[in-house]
Amino acid sequence: MELKVDGRSLLGALDELAQIGAIEGGGCARLALSDDDKAGRDLVVARMRALGLEVQVDAIGNVFGMRPGRERLAPIMTGSHIDTVRTGGRYDGNYGVLAGLEVVRALNAANVTTRRPIVVAFFTNEEGARFQPDMLGSLVYAGGLGLNEAYVAADKDGLSVGDELRRIGYLGPMKPGAIRPQAFLELHIEQGPILDEEKVQIGVVEGVQGISWTEYTVTGVSNHAGTTPMRLRRDAGYLAASVNVFARALAREMGGDQVATVGALTLRPNLINVVPNRAVFTVDLRNTDEARLKEAEAKVAAHVAEVAAEERLDVETRVLARFEPVIFDSGLVDHVEHHAKALSLSTRRMPSGAGHDAQMMQRICPTAMIFVPSVGGLSHNVGEHTEPHDLVAGAQLLLNLMVDLAERS
Amino acid sequence: MELKVDGRSLLGALDELAQIGAIEGGGCARLALSDDDKAGRDLVVARMRALGLEVQVDAIGNVFGMRPGRERLAPIMTGSHIDTVRTGGRYDGNYGVLAGLEVVRALNAANVTTRRPIVVAFFTNEEGARFQPDMLGSLVYAGGLGLNEAYVAADKDGLSVGDELRRIGYLGPMKPGAIRPQAFLELHIEQGPILDEEKVQIGVVEGVQGISWTEYTVTGVSNHAGTTPMRLRRDAGYLAASVNVFARALAREMGGDQVATVGALTLRPNLINVVPNRAVFTVDLRNTDEARLKEAEAKVAAHVAEVAAEERLDVETRVLARFEPVIFDSGLVDHVEHHAKALSLSTRRMPSGAGHDAQMMQRICPTAMIFVPSVGGLSHNVGEHTEPHDLVAGAQLLLNLMVDLAERS
Repeated sequence: MELKVDGRSLLGALDELAQIGAIEGGGCARLALSDDDKAGRDLVVARMRALGLEVQVDAIGNVFGMRPGRERLAPIMTGSHIDTVRTGGRYDGNYGVLAGLEVVRALNAANVTTRRPIVVAFFTNEEGARFQPDMLGSLVYAGGLGLNEAYVAADKDGLSVGDELRRIGYLGPMKPGAIRPQAFLELHIEQGPILDEEKVQIGVVEGVQGISWTEYTVTGVSNHAGTTPMRLRRDAGYLAASVNVFARALAREMGGDQVATVGALTLRPNLINVVPNRAVFTVDLRNTDEARLKEAEAKVAAHVAEVAAEERLDVETRVLARFEPVIFDSGLVDHVEHHAKALSLSTRRMPSGAGHDAQMMQRICPTAMIFVPSVGGLSHNVGEHTEPHDLVAGAQLLLNLMVDLAERS
Repeated sequence: MELKVDGRSLLGALDELAQIGAIEGGGCARLALSDDDKAGRDLVVARMRALGLEVQVDAIGNVFGMRPGRERLAPIMTGSHIDTVRTGGRYDGNYGVLAGLEVVRALNAANVTTRRPIVVAFFTNEEGARFQPDMLGSLVYAGGLGLNEAYVAADKDGLSVGDELRRIGYLGPMKPGAIRPQAFLELHIEQGPILDEEKVQIGVVEGVQGISWTEYTVTGVSNHAGTTPMRLRRDAGYLAASVNVFARALAREMGGDQVATVGALTLRPNLINVVPNRAVFTVDLRNTDEARLKEAEAKVAAHVAEVAAEERLDVETRVLARFEPVIFDSGLVDHVEHHAKALSLSTRRMPSGAGHDAQMMQRICPTAMIFVPSVGGLSHNVGEHTEPHDLVAGAQLLLNLMVDLAERS
């Protein structure tokens, strides 16, 4: 028997959810635990119930729609998130959740009961645009953060996660982590340009890059740009520039998945004819391999120290974020690739450069991710777009995978 | 007969003028044609009159204190300016004017009448901190800018040079340029660190560096710092960094007087995890040799074009300022060196990296400059400082030079 997702239903569901918190340009603004997030949650919960799922809400607001299996075994879970950044697109997160519901719809339509239960989940505050840390709900679910610690996380207006969960009615009775899946799958748009650029239909995600964020505050001496010889300069801006160029060359030289970005930089006094006496800048390094990431960090740090000594600059270093890489379950990753090929979809193994709930779930169960192309790699942008045929192909792959996994012992 | 400047009088005069527009930290704020500038002018004019000088004011507010000679020949002129930047020091400009008056005082005290007349001048709006262009008074005096054009120059509140000159009573009857000197000398603090660093007493200034100011506006594409491979980036900030590093290497490689500065840089969106899609930055290039300055400009422009092409960036280029180098009169420069050595003062030939009224006067008569050390090279800073013995030594050199020149045919 061949199960098929209903593409029209999937696209309709995406359109419907995108109406909530809709913003100009076709995007969405549904910050976590806001009124619009509540409206989005209510809509998805109603869809879950309409599909016959039993809805459970845990104490951090993660929501689970449960479809029973033939046996009382650990379920196969899929899901993602429905919160967005302030200028978000309509696919990021939402796609994985609504495609999960289309898996259920297909099973219902064919009147199939799988051996293992199927669960479709959405997690609280994945984006981190309102509350830090990001991936908060799945992090708590996987035991990486205590509930009390999570509850006191506050937004910039001082409103806390705990209070906002209560206010919107999503502080549920279930203990986070209570449903321990047999496997977890997350379907997501790539949020990067590689699949689109290479015209590949499915990204077989092997892991999530480790992230290293460092802020450097450099102090030099302001001097007249005309009268100060080069050898006497203590130019804070020069160090920032030198690190940017070094990091680019380093990433190219290291190759593989290594990326390096100087995204933020502020100079003082920031005048055309004055040597900058202060530069504050950030370095974002990512790699799928922890040893390589540490190597990149060490090389950047050594370069900073070397130029600072040459230029007689003082440098303060602050680590803003540091996550080790996550490696997904290799057997499950092979399954993703196998089923994609069985559907005659072109595939590419790749890491995720962005963080995802799946990386937290890998802490408690075998996990993998499926990426579909994102046109031009636009992400966290109202112009984010994935072609309908790619959305449907990804959902079909998810369906086939889940049914296969749900029949295994 | 040995003429000597009165060091105590010079230092007292500097202290007295520094009281007007005094600001915290020992500096001055006497923006051109402000009430404080008027008060400063009135004080210096009163000092001129007390020394028996005949005061003339020209139509752009330049002020000349005239001491007759034995013959009706072209005078030997010295001078500088008394306006300051908003956080100026007490020596910049003021020193050259007040030292000129000490030359007159020494001549008066010795009852000496030189063959040629002696003139001590101060010029309007040298700093350019209130009205652009800078060196406005001397530029008009030398015929480089018409009076009407100068009069309409307005400050940020819309007040014009013409109106402000009238308001403070310094729109005089004399035609700018009417007194054509036989030679012009300007005594000034270095505004840079070289003399202080090398423990040299007198800078023999051979010319003023040419200045090239360019602003680049770079447009790339914002992308996720984690998911965008290096080869697909169009990072506007990278170009800015690359130009900074290139300009540093270029200045070192070209050597001589070449300096290069990236002083101002603004990134957008300026976020740690987003590849910048916009960078606006400036490049300040200076050289005493026009051909070398052009070479530096061409090399920077070629580098910008090359990186922009590699990185697929759009670049808009705007020239903010361009002045050719000025070369002072070599005979007069030799005189400065000769008289310094005769006073057993250590000397160093050097260019000026900053602009000065003398560079405008070189257009109409043989001109040279004398620099004295500035501690740590601080300039346009309330902490600007020159040691008293250096101030007195510079004034004595100016006296000896002027007397020598004023006796020549």
